[in-house]
Amino acid sequence: MQLLEGKVAAKHIKQNLKEDIDLLKKKGLVPNLRVVIVGNSPASLAYVNMVRKSFNKEGVNADVLKLDESISEDQFISELEKLNNDNKVSGILIQLPLPKQINTSKIIKLINPNKDVDGFHPLNAGKLLIGEDTFIPCTPYGMIKMLEEYDIDIEGKNAVVLGRSNIVGKPISLLLMEKNATVTICHSRTKNIKEIASKADILVAAIGKHNFVDESMVKEGAIVLDVGIHVVDGKLKGDVDFENVKNKVSYITPVPGGVGTTTIAMLMYNTVKACKLINKTN
Amino acid sequence: MQLLEGKVAAKHIKQNLKEDIDLLKKKGLVPNLRVVIVGNSPASLAYVNMVRKSFNKEGVNADVLKLDESISEDQFISELEKLNNDNKVSGILIQLPLPKQINTSKIIKLINPNKDVDGFHPLNAGKLLIGEDTFIPCTPYGMIKMLEEYDIDIEGKNAVVLGRSNIVGKPISLLLMEKNATVTICHSRTKNIKEIASKADILVAAIGKHNFVDESMVKEGAIVLDVGIHVVDGKLKGDVDFENVKNKVSYITPVPGGVGTTTIAMLMYNTVKACKLINKTN
Repeated sequence: MQLLEGKVAAKHIKQNLKEDIDLLKKKGLVPNLRVVIVGNSPASLAYVNMVRKSFNKEGVNADVLKLDESISEDQFISELEKLNNDNKVSGILIQLPLPKQINTSKIIKLINPNKDVDGFHPLNAGKLLIGEDTFIPCTPYGMIKMLEEYDIDIEGKNAVVLGRSNIVGKPISLLLMEKNATVTICHSRTKNIKEIASKADILVAAIGKHNFVDESMVKEGAIVLDVGIHVVDGKLKGDVDFENVKNKVSYITPVPGGVGTTTIAMLMYNTVKACKLINKTN
Repeated sequence: MQLLEGKVAAKHIKQNLKEDIDLLKKKGLVPNLRVVIVGNSPASLAYVNMVRKSFNKEGVNADVLKLDESISEDQFISELEKLNNDNKVSGILIQLPLPKQINTSKIIKLINPNKDVDGFHPLNAGKLLIGEDTFIPCTPYGMIKMLEEYDIDIEGKNAVVLGRSNIVGKPISLLLMEKNATVTICHSRTKNIKEIASKADILVAAIGKHNFVDESMVKEGAIVLDVGIHVVDGKLKGDVDFENVKNKVSYITPVPGGVGTTTIAMLMYNTVKACKLINKTN
């Protein structure tokens, strides 16, 4: 079994970005992410601090726009408009969930699609679906980069994705298919999920249940990507029972230190892409 | 074996539309489709005539805008803009392929998304991907209506889609998943396509090869939807070898008279939807 380490892929992604960041710098441009947080979630603030540290090391900015929990939808939209129109802001990331007075689906459609580093705007989601250049959601995009980093061939493989969320399940299915995998998407209503999973060459666990995937669900020699993040007894754990499956698989992402780490690198990638896009440089 | 007849589903779809069409009529509105044809393809013109006849019976208009084969991209865009801004035009359908001087991907993004009855604009494709109300491409949408017409339960079924096109394979996969099927998408690079197909409860053949699906590829009692249209010895044939599989399946769409017939009904549905949308009535 070999670990698929997020930091190894992330290092490579950042190295490849260096040239772009330097070129932008010569033009007086610094990629700049603005993370919008409503309320005082310590987890969100801690996450942004981690993102900022990681970005700053590479010469990319990341700032927080902290809004009050009681902000009205109109006020929120007015703040978003400012970010949309501010040439100094390259990428906008809105931390979800939003409080209930704000319609999330409406807000996502109001993000400038050229600053949509999450790839959640339907225009960007549609480009992903039809195979055009777009902002690819960071978590699934990072997973593809991880497979590439470790020279894992995707073409012709049977891939099984557990979970059909807009953020992970659907986009990773499309990306794996784009790379010529044969993809099966399983979810809560799938009847024979264990049997299907156990035939996967590449298994993506994004179902949001701690220890959902055990030895009986993985094929001998499978490649396992674990998207789950759960706090169990004060420790971060995934959707996969790591100890139980580790001797059966050929490759597996640890939690923490796997998919989550590449996600942050892809957020930087998308922020640099947005900076180039809104300043029309290549 | 029971035939899934397009005309049966289409009749029902049209009946359900009658109330909407009558309501629009009372407001002085007539849903109006404009089909844009570049060049003189007899097949395209014959298709539009068939659409027009079918629409007119229900009080819906369908007209052709015929453009010269040598039209420049700029001229084409200018004609498209006129349709986008003409309040009398509810829906716009551009017959593909376009001649090579015209960039199809660019043109599709210039269609008013509220008139995009094909559902090809990335904004509409994106809404389909993330599960929001949108224009669903007519062929896959018709297939879902066909299954509903014959009271075929989709939930929990293993569905296999042969083909990953933007027009059929990807959207039908999303729609089947939305109805809680477990979906596998196969394509030209799939290694064990026969084996996968032969385990499908619902098999969608949209791979564009005449007689591709034979008895060995269908499960006993499967439901088979055949999207293929091929002219063989002057006759219309599908992707499925109908005679070879008919005694093994529980339901199957014939070609002609199956999926194609519901496609036209869904085009009418989308045209009426567009008319309501651009006139902001419900």
